[in-house]
Amino acid sequence: MKAVAVTREGSGPELIEVPDPTPEAGEALLRTLRVGIDGTDHEVIAGNHGGYPEGDDHQILGHEAVAVVEDANGTGLEEGSLVVPTVRRPSGADGGHFERGEPDMAPDGAYVERGIVGAHGYMSELFTSPPEFLVPVPDSFAEYGFLVEPISNSEKAFEHAFAARSAFDWRPESALVLGNGPLGLLTLAMLETERSPFDRTYCLGRRDRPDPTVDIVDRLGSTYVDSRQTPVDEIPEAHEAVDFVYEATGYAKHAFETVDALAPNGVGALLGIPEDWTFEIDGGRLHRELVLENKALFGSVNSNVGQYEAAKDRLTAFPDWFTDALVTGVYDPDDADAAFETGDDVIKTVVEFDTP
Amino acid sequence: MKAVAVTREGSGPELIEVPDPTPEAGEALLRTLRVGIDGTDHEVIAGNHGGYPEGDDHQILGHEAVAVVEDANGTGLEEGSLVVPTVRRPSGADGGHFERGEPDMAPDGAYVERGIVGAHGYMSELFTSPPEFLVPVPDSFAEYGFLVEPISNSEKAFEHAFAARSAFDWRPESALVLGNGPLGLLTLAMLETERSPFDRTYCLGRRDRPDPTVDIVDRLGSTYVDSRQTPVDEIPEAHEAVDFVYEATGYAKHAFETVDALAPNGVGALLGIPEDWTFEIDGGRLHRELVLENKALFGSVNSNVGQYEAAKDRLTAFPDWFTDALVTGVYDPDDADAAFETGDDVIKTVVEFDTP
Repeated sequence: MKAVAVTREGSGPELIEVPDPTPEAGEALLRTLRVGIDGTDHEVIAGNHGGYPEGDDHQILGHEAVAVVEDANGTGLEEGSLVVPTVRRPSGADGGHFERGEPDMAPDGAYVERGIVGAHGYMSELFTSPPEFLVPVPDSFAEYGFLVEPISNSEKAFEHAFAARSAFDWRPESALVLGNGPLGLLTLAMLETERSPFDRTYCLGRRDRPDPTVDIVDRLGSTYVDSRQTPVDEIPEAHEAVDFVYEATGYAKHAFETVDALAPNGVGALLGIPEDWTFEIDGGRLHRELVLENKALFGSVNSNVGQYEAAKDRLTAFPDWFTDALVTGVYDPDDADAAFETGDDVIKTVVEFDTP
Repeated sequence: MKAVAVTREGSGPELIEVPDPTPEAGEALLRTLRVGIDGTDHEVIAGNHGGYPEGDDHQILGHEAVAVVEDANGTGLEEGSLVVPTVRRPSGADGGHFERGEPDMAPDGAYVERGIVGAHGYMSELFTSPPEFLVPVPDSFAEYGFLVEPISNSEKAFEHAFAARSAFDWRPESALVLGNGPLGLLTLAMLETERSPFDRTYCLGRRDRPDPTVDIVDRLGSTYVDSRQTPVDEIPEAHEAVDFVYEATGYAKHAFETVDALAPNGVGALLGIPEDWTFEIDGGRLHRELVLENKALFGSVNSNVGQYEAAKDRLTAFPDWFTDALVTGVYDPDDADAAFETGDDVIKTVVEFDTP
């Protein structure tokens, strides 16, 4: 079958031919429809996540997928129905996190991640999986179901943010998304849906208008903040101190400037994964500000099945124009090179292996 | 009446004579029994908190008190019964925090703090208060009831810490208290009580044995960590990565080293209030560590009546030897100077105005 992978010899994503997978007992065989591409894929290609599957000289890419049950193989799944696979698989002692349905809380070393580290991804015509790692989705999800995975990461961040403020009567009004990449825009759309508790949102980027991401920010009814004019720590003065910050830039200074951007009792969710970077901060002021204004910061990675379920509702609630504008390119596996190209006109791309 | 205060002319706490207070309608008159001294009092004396009560040239000290209802004045309080007063009072638009019973979550500027900023404290023979800021305590609290206030601050920090981890099945085992001052030791005792979820605790200080605070750490069954030998970020290697960190040093680097000390999914509570201090951190690594290991940090200040109630239970559960060892001096108001002296033999002192 065709697969898009990185190899030890190659320098980027390549279309390769690999044997069709055979489902083991307890595994279903899935036929891939679409696989989305995000920043993590580019990090895998750059070798930052590393970790080829044991014994292999290639890593099949892709962790945002929607697929059809091709062969249920006794798993109880309905053949022909659609599923979205989760990312993490257990790889050792994990303190029971997988058993408790919380793979996202498993510590480093207790898991592999399909398409990211230590396990093949979904960017191939077929893949196999036990059913507990497959979330059923309706037939209408063939086109955009691959967005369930990234949305679920933000569902988790939202859950943790509200939990962190659940010891008192938190009444948030405003939210700020740091980053206008695909995850930032998806999150902004989530914050602008009907059931969002936030009245006002802001989205930080560093692009000049006209720009397709800024157009989306505008159309969502959010306020675009150009970080070149208004750094994160100046947002309270330029706009307002915000109750919730969602960081999706991976720019480490943003983690600390988030404390300044927050209103009293606010909470910041960090999702970026930066490299080492030493810099100066006024740690005394930040520490004091956290304490005297009851502010909170937390990191969040991955997601669980419950958060995939919430993501399905959220995706359904998005207006069509949003998903259409977000996905700027749909590519055949033969054009995988093009699917991974970045540029000012590219927001989110997807590799399409098949249609239902 | 006698009061212990700082004055604009003076250089430290002084015994002064002020008129007896008269309760207004809706206020009770309280006769002070004991008032504890903590680091905040020393900061008030040093002028770090500042803010004399409007129109006054002195600030009566003290925010950790236990008192007797001297004149209920129609408030419904029982004359002769004991109470512990809370610290914050509304001083303007506060977003409804006081009305909702959450004075501790009111933003800066929405409150004064008795004995700390903008309002007289309890270090006087008599004081007045509306009943909603007085927490009834049993007669047995005459001696150590002044500890309810500091304990309540840690009750709040615990509540917020567990809330911050309530979005998943958190199973903490180990806790680390940064600081072996009175608040650190009180918190350590709380973490070592029967109803604590923590199996193992550590307490960081920078004192040589023999030392009365280290003796308490030992006797509580905790492990003393000398920060001169084992800095906070090396605790995982020397002992173990911990699930909960409680910072009570006000040393700003500890806020950031807490991220290193935490185990995956751990949470750090910051309670210290440092001055500005610029230093270098590996912000990229800290940010990445927060994200990939789902770690959380939050600041916590002050407490609400519910947390005072919890603190009453906690104080009752302390073994007698602990409170006896913690309180190293009981002073007459005439010896207030001595009550504020610090030294290696001093842990917590109290000014005693009266007995029931």
